[in-house]
Amino acid sequence: MASGVNGTSGRPRKAAGRSPSVSPLSLNRISFYLRCLKRLDAEGLERISSKELARRFNLSAPQIRKDLAQLGEFGIRGVGYETSALIEHLSTLLGLDRQHRMVIVGMGNLGSALARYLGFNSGPFQVVAGIDKDPDKVGERIGSFVVRPAEELAQVVRCSGAEIGVLTVPADGAQASHDALVDAGIRGVINFSPTRIRPVPGVPLKDVDLRIHLEELAYFLQERQGQHS
Amino acid sequence: MASGVNGTSGRPRKAAGRSPSVSPLSLNRISFYLRCLKRLDAEGLERISSKELARRFNLSAPQIRKDLAQLGEFGIRGVGYETSALIEHLSTLLGLDRQHRMVIVGMGNLGSALARYLGFNSGPFQVVAGIDKDPDKVGERIGSFVVRPAEELAQVVRCSGAEIGVLTVPADGAQASHDALVDAGIRGVINFSPTRIRPVPGVPLKDVDLRIHLEELAYFLQERQGQHS
Repeated sequence: MASGVNGTSGRPRKAAGRSPSVSPLSLNRISFYLRCLKRLDAEGLERISSKELARRFNLSAPQIRKDLAQLGEFGIRGVGYETSALIEHLSTLLGLDRQHRMVIVGMGNLGSALARYLGFNSGPFQVVAGIDKDPDKVGERIGSFVVRPAEELAQVVRCSGAEIGVLTVPADGAQASHDALVDAGIRGVINFSPTRIRPVPGVPLKDVDLRIHLEELAYFLQERQGQHS
Repeated sequence: MASGVNGTSGRPRKAAGRSPSVSPLSLNRISFYLRCLKRLDAEGLERISSKELARRFNLSAPQIRKDLAQLGEFGIRGVGYETSALIEHLSTLLGLDRQHRMVIVGMGNLGSALARYLGFNSGPFQVVAGIDKDPDKVGERIGSFVVRPAEELAQVVRCSGAEIGVLTVPADGAQASHDALVDAGIRGVINFSPTRIRPVPGVPLKDVDLRIHLEELAYFLQERQGQHS
């Protein structure tokens, strides 16, 4: 429940010229391999074996080989993977070879924090707009955009070309904001609001709940303390 | 890989007077039930059935009954759960009946964002200190604390009584910062740095990787676009 992609039940068939469908779990590992490979590439490393990749980043070599094998043939036995070619292939697979514009709905503490964090880092994800219903927040400049009022949501989505909606509103308003984003043509949503949202078929929804991660850790501390008392 | 608790392999046995060990997944659901119950309690609802709880928050009633049954007997058939009693029990189980102090290491965009987000919300989690190695950031006031230099990490942890370390440093420095926190006596770590960390036995480590969630969504958008082209 802390994270998961919903609304992908009608998963499209493999499209011509694209790699096969990959499970969310192995997708997360591939994201991570890509990040590791970029660090190695920056260090000037042209080739790496699965064994060395595993050693450097605390990963499993058989798992790396299995995950990459399902995407095609990259590694050469005894030689390893060619760093830059693999980076290019994985980036294309993940859709990171082009820009993804994002609009944030709810410019409270978390919303403005995410705008600063995501928007000020270069890369394929770019925050292009922020929306809030609080008149005190509307008009405020955050990074490269000015906060717009909730009534203009549909217009903001259409004019900014945003594909991804980021929900950081309180739990009560989350479903309505989600539905408004989908109506305006947004293609995928990340939900940081601490509530469950009914996804719309065809529009993937990803839940990220920071507080649940903290509570999980608190439970394990609690359990340990119980042991010592 | 986007999230998971490591370092809990030597999970302690059930401690006297405590509830049985709960899996991370059902723990996440319990966190969520607790949040739902608090909203209902605020609305003045004294009792709720699993069916109604499921309907209100898009959950599964059999799953709710199963998750709660493993913690003891709460519900009365045909009557439901008593809201406030269940809130109290679940809060105690999760260790949310007491304060958890947190120190954030790495006061860049994400670190200061989290300090503002977590620290300004009341509740059992409280950010009591922030640390950075950049002299320009040291001395800056963020909320209720002043950023302290990396050399003072051990002293800050000991004097602040922090139990949970929050890692928001770049990937390169994450392992060293983690180990320094553990040496200073921190009891659990949440890692937001985009790298894998080797946990220390007995100190739970929880990985939260925001960018991996974005990349997962980008992949699903990519897949859909492939279908339309």
